Amino acid sequence: MSAVGLLPRTQSLHRSPFPPVRPGMAALPSACPRHLLPLSLGLFQGAVVLFFALFVTYDKPSARAEDANLAANQLHGIFPLFQDIQVMLVVGLGLLLMFLPRYGLSAVTHNFLLLNFSTQWALVLKGLLHHFQHGQAHLDLHNLLTAEFAAVTVLISVGAILGRTSPCQLLVMAVCEVPIYFTSEWAIITCLGSLDVGGTITIHVFSCYFGLGVSKALFGTARRLVHPKETPTPRSDLLSLVGTLILWVFWPSFVAVLCQPGDAQHRAILNTFLAMSASAVTTVVASSLLERNSKLSPGHVQNGSLAGGVAIGAVADMAMLPVAALALGSLSAVACVLGFRFLTPLLARKLALQDQCGIHNLHGLPGILGAMASAAAILVASEDTSGSHFSQVSPVGGNASEAAGGQWGNHGAGRQALCQVAGLAVAIGGSLLAGLLTGTVLRLPCLAQPPEQLCFDDALYFKVQDQAESSGPGSTTEEGAMALKERV
Amino acid sequence: MSAVGLLPRTQSLHRSPFPPVRPGMAALPSACPRHLLPLSLGLFQGAVVLFFALFVTYDKPSARAEDANLAANQLHGIFPLFQDIQVMLVVGLGLLLMFLPRYGLSAVTHNFLLLNFSTQWALVLKGLLHHFQHGQAHLDLHNLLTAEFAAVTVLISVGAILGRTSPCQLLVMAVCEVPIYFTSEWAIITCLGSLDVGGTITIHVFSCYFGLGVSKALFGTARRLVHPKETPTPRSDLLSLVGTLILWVFWPSFVAVLCQPGDAQHRAILNTFLAMSASAVTTVVASSLLERNSKLSPGHVQNGSLAGGVAIGAVADMAMLPVAALALGSLSAVACVLGFRFLTPLLARKLALQDQCGIHNLHGLPGILGAMASAAAILVASEDTSGSHFSQVSPVGGNASEAAGGQWGNHGAGRQALCQVAGLAVAIGGSLLAGLLTGTVLRLPCLAQPPEQLCFDDALYFKVQDQAESSGPGSTTEEGAMALKERV
Amino acid sequence: MSAVGLLPRTQSLHRSPFPPVRPGMAALPSACPRHLLPLSLGLFQGAVVLFFALFVTYDKPSARAEDANLAANQLHGIFPLFQDIQVMLVVGLGLLLMFLPRYGLSAVTHNFLLLNFSTQWALVLKGLLHHFQHGQAHLDLHNLLTAEFAAVTVLISVGAILGRTSPCQLLVMAVCEVPIYFTSEWAIITCLGSLDVGGTITIHVFSCYFGLGVSKALFGTARRLVHPKETPTPRSDLLSLVGTLILWVFWPSFVAVLCQPGDAQHRAILNTFLAMSASAVTTVVASSLLERNSKLSPGHVQNGSLAGGVAIGAVADMAMLPVAALALGSLSAVACVLGFRFLTPLLARKLALQDQCGIHNLHGLPGILGAMASAAAILVASEDTSGSHFSQVSPVGGNASEAAGGQWGNHGAGRQALCQVAGLAVAIGGSLLAGLLTGTVLRLPCLAQPPEQLCFDDALYFKVQDQAESSGPGSTTEEGAMALKERV
Repeated sequence: MSAVGLLPRTQSLHRSPFPPVRPGMAALPSACPRHLLPLSLGLFQGAVVLFFALFVTYDKPSARAEDANLAANQLHGIFPLFQDIQVMLVVGLGLLLMFLPRYGLSAVTHNFLLLNFSTQWALVLKGLLHHFQHGQAHLDLHNLLTAEFAAVTVLISVGAILGRTSPCQLLVMAVCEVPIYFTSEWAIITCLGSLDVGGTITIHVFSCYFGLGVSKALFGTARRLVHPKETPTPRSDLLSLVGTLILWVFWPSFVAVLCQPGDAQHRAILNTFLAMSASAVTTVVASSLLERNSKLSPGHVQNGSLAGGVAIGAVADMAMLPVAALALGSLSAVACVLGFRFLTPLLARKLALQDQCGIHNLHGLPGILGAMASAAAILVASEDTSGSHFSQVSPVGGNASEAAGGQWGNHGAGRQALCQVAGLAVAIGGSLLAGLLTGTVLRLPCLAQPPEQLCFDDALYFKVQDQAESSGPGSTTEEGAMALKERV
Repeated sequence: MSAVGLLPRTQSLHRSPFPPVRPGMAALPSACPRHLLPLSLGLFQGAVVLFFALFVTYDKPSARAEDANLAANQLHGIFPLFQDIQVMLVVGLGLLLMFLPRYGLSAVTHNFLLLNFSTQWALVLKGLLHHFQHGQAHLDLHNLLTAEFAAVTVLISVGAILGRTSPCQLLVMAVCEVPIYFTSEWAIITCLGSLDVGGTITIHVFSCYFGLGVSKALFGTARRLVHPKETPTPRSDLLSLVGTLILWVFWPSFVAVLCQPGDAQHRAILNTFLAMSASAVTTVVASSLLERNSKLSPGHVQNGSLAGGVAIGAVADMAMLPVAALALGSLSAVACVLGFRFLTPLLARKLALQDQCGIHNLHGLPGILGAMASAAAILVASEDTSGSHFSQVSPVGGNASEAAGGQWGNHGAGRQALCQVAGLAVAIGGSLLAGLLTGTVLRLPCLAQPPEQLCFDDALYFKVQDQAESSGPGSTTEEGAMALKERV
Repeated sequence: MSAVGLLPRTQSLHRSPFPPVRPGMAALPSACPRHLLPLSLGLFQGAVVLFFALFVTYDKPSARAEDANLAANQLHGIFPLFQDIQVMLVVGLGLLLMFLPRYGLSAVTHNFLLLNFSTQWALVLKGLLHHFQHGQAHLDLHNLLTAEFAAVTVLISVGAILGRTSPCQLLVMAVCEVPIYFTSEWAIITCLGSLDVGGTITIHVFSCYFGLGVSKALFGTARRLVHPKETPTPRSDLLSLVGTLILWVFWPSFVAVLCQPGDAQHRAILNTFLAMSASAVTTVVASSLLERNSKLSPGHVQNGSLAGGVAIGAVADMAMLPVAALALGSLSAVACVLGFRFLTPLLARKLALQDQCGIHNLHGLPGILGAMASAAAILVASEDTSGSHFSQVSPVGGNASEAAGGQWGNHGAGRQALCQVAGLAVAIGGSLLAGLLTGTVLRLPCLAQPPEQLCFDDALYFKVQDQAESSGPGSTTEEGAMALKERV
């Protein structure tokens, strides 16, 4: 039997500025019925099964051989990109959230649970909508992708409140955010006609301000001290950086998956690569210049390297020169690092705004930049169609991309540019408002927000060997060191 | 030079319930000739080279341009899925096995070695068989895949005996298991005609009961105490969870890779996704309900999230509604978590059965569930072909899938359903018997089973800085803490 | 606030053979202007943007529908392999370099920065060259790939000098190495006509001897003691091993990405798989035989398993039997392990040659072996075209591969084999010379080579919680252990 487990546990070595936590206390506060989470989650899963039984089916298989061939080809085209996106959301994002040194299991499991919960919830909502309009809903990989994009907004928004919220709160947030996302996307893309193939406006900007709204409404005006478990260690920073790299590698798939196959998709991939490459280099520049002794901040590298991918989404498949992607990537990395250095502390001081992962710097600022860039790109492209050296890029085939500058007159381009800005405004305004309302809902006592001293700790949600459990007063220091070593 | 290395090493701080292990003892017991492993492994590799020289070649390249195009298209269709499966087996499974905190290097290296050894061995066996029937064997990606599937059974079976066995034993087990797998697969698929596109019966159920048979025969009736190095730490649980996520993401590729391209493959991917998504959510429900304080057990999440993928294999490409995949995923996750909570302790108590990784809960129970589900799906589909709302799914083109309900009459469907159950019975019975025999072979003293006190420790197989080596009695506590920190 | 952060920091627990480092000293030496790195890097990024604005554009989109279809198909063929290669370079290589226990953040970030910097630099150089010959350069995924291959040479060369060099030095090295690589590749492939589809000669051999040349010129003749932070821990070895596995899995994509689609690419994938599988098994054999007690050395497994992939590059798409790939993989693993065991210590003793990651064993020796094998394969293939049992492989369609034995007479084959050897000689000689010159440049004081006692430590380049910061003399041992635990 474990030497560790055998030691009497009469005194905790764990020192913190908070009152000591007795063994039994490391659990949810009493206001919360113990089984609320599993019961409501089980109920949800049962309801999803019921809904699928009644309303969802697969497409009829193609009868003719040519159609079957076409279906196979389409699948081979989209499936590798789908898998790339899955890796990003499940593994990459999970690792990125591991920067909290004692909250890794919770962060990655909550991320995983929320992804599945929100995707199923999005499928149900889409199916319901489709049912009222056209009857039985047909499930395919394309539907699944759009449902996952809805789930992505939840995963991003969680970044603002990570570690200080219970799984119940996160699930309620997902329940609220997914339908709001669909409404917002419908307003921006369908009504306003904004162009946003990579989700810069509809996903990144929306989810960022939604998350900030939730954070503001949930945590109110109390300013928090830095929690002792909140500071990353070199080890947790390292795992988080690996998550960044995974996201960085697969981001082009995320941006390009819904593009027209062929040239537009090719261009979207190249633009995304260029933007992210410029981001990676520029982040090092900006972080070195801003920090003492020219040292890098791990947090800057983890986030700034991805800023270009956020910004490029709205313009990735447009007719523009490669230089625009490079410049946009550089600018968004600068915005992201400046945000971390100056804006986040400012917002925390002035507005008492909590933003645990800095989503405003990674998704908000670069997203706004990307939206403005899309308006600019549309204006420039329309001027160049009758112009000089740009003409070799502009005449995109009508079937290849809706984003061609040529299809608007100068007047039409101006209107399209306005649509981009209007879409941005709708995304920010709507999501902030909806986030504030959602955050108020999350204050319900039954949702079991963890008390401050139990935050950022896996021990609240997981049956783990408590890291401060083994060394009692009877044990000599050597035994303590030994027991500690066991756990290392 | 390292401060750590300079300290005299006269006393080990490592405390354990076992008698102290002297430095020289951390090696294989004397019954084993030191070089048995490398010599026999080298001999094996030489024999494989010889066999390939005599009997294996590549396909003739296509002469005509259309054929070359077709070959290129086929390669583009299968290669990304092949790579996904490689990631699962090498990286995902390797990380999943890292839950033993001091056995990570050994677990991942043995997994990697066994995969390569068993794949080569499977290629040799298949080549030999082909040689006697048709002459020279032609190697292509499809052959390689079926050889890897044989290797997968070995990797799964190892889970039952991980940490308490030597590499020699594992290699002998692989030598035995691969031909038995081929025999069993031939009996189930070719003779009985069971349908099992994702390997639920032929791979998961087979390898699970083979592994349990080996474990029973190898470890006999002695009940073991919990080994001090066997308990996962939060850190090792975290790496293991990342392994789970990698497996979770790529599982659809594993199930769908051998499906008919086009609609059947598309359906297999979607079904697998739905089953695994339901598993992920349901695992959290089940684990929370079963554990004290509604906390999650990391082991449940690591395994339960994958249960749906195991169960869906036998029905993934069949004509059934999406709801069936969801329900099956949920059920198998419940079965898996219940297995961990109640069945594994029961089997350990009553039968003294060791199952280190809980393969019975991840591969056995969901596999049986999946096999039963395939029988049920066949019966339901055959009733619905002449029926009402299901008819839109059933008329699968004859070339798209063999699994169509329409091609059997009601009588034929009943017979096919029986075949599924018969296949399951053959898989369980045959593998248990073969496993027991193989386990008896593994007791040969020359195979160097490690003594209990040296189990679960990388130091037995790897030249690593011993984690308990540096602090002697002459060192003050501070130096000890320092030295420890060095190693952290 | 953190208990850790509050403690007065008057004494460092960190013990080392070097004079104590005062807090302020953990920074670049005074010879270096603090902002040289960010300023020059920012200037570089600005220059790249300017260059792209003037000279780089995208291809015109295809006007006709068939062309668009073809473009989409080509993209689907190449993009998954491109992503695989990205994972290798960013994630796999990054993790592989994490074997230095306190240098993980720096190793992975420098690798990431160098990849982006070198790729952009290579794109600029290629664009410039193209501009002078044909005007405006057109960017596509194929161009990007060849630029990344240039960056790979930098990433490999860095292995020789990892941990003892500043980012400034690494960037200057990249600036020098990329154009030298293009020159060397032009000489070997275009002028000499050597065949090297997987970059064995042009990438691996070249970058290895370039790196060794740099190391020799940079570190001179001083022999170094083993640095206390240089020894891998089980944990850092584990992460490094995961990096190896990621590289191992995706290596076939690296070798096959530029092959002719269809049969040649299929053969390249299979050959690479066979070579790497044989390497993995043989490495275990060789390492066990060479180490005391038949234990494995983690470093051997991390490198030897990949040796087959290095060696197979020059012959991967040639008309040869599968056995050749197996044998080559085995041989190169043996060469790699023998190199680590005997050659590296010898070179360190006799020539005072530093080779931190052992690139000579992973890239040099197997690369030379692969180049010789390519010469042999060409000779054998040419003999077999009019011969007996080989004829079924040889008649490769003229469009499928340039490597067909049939297209040279016996005389032509002899000449081609000579070209392979000549290419190897050019790669070694040229890169050694260029490396020595580059290394001399790196000795410029303004490039801020870190002093020996600050090597191998993230604290020099990253704002991290210093691992030896928290326990002062006022704290009791228990508090020290606690604080340490906090950080674990």
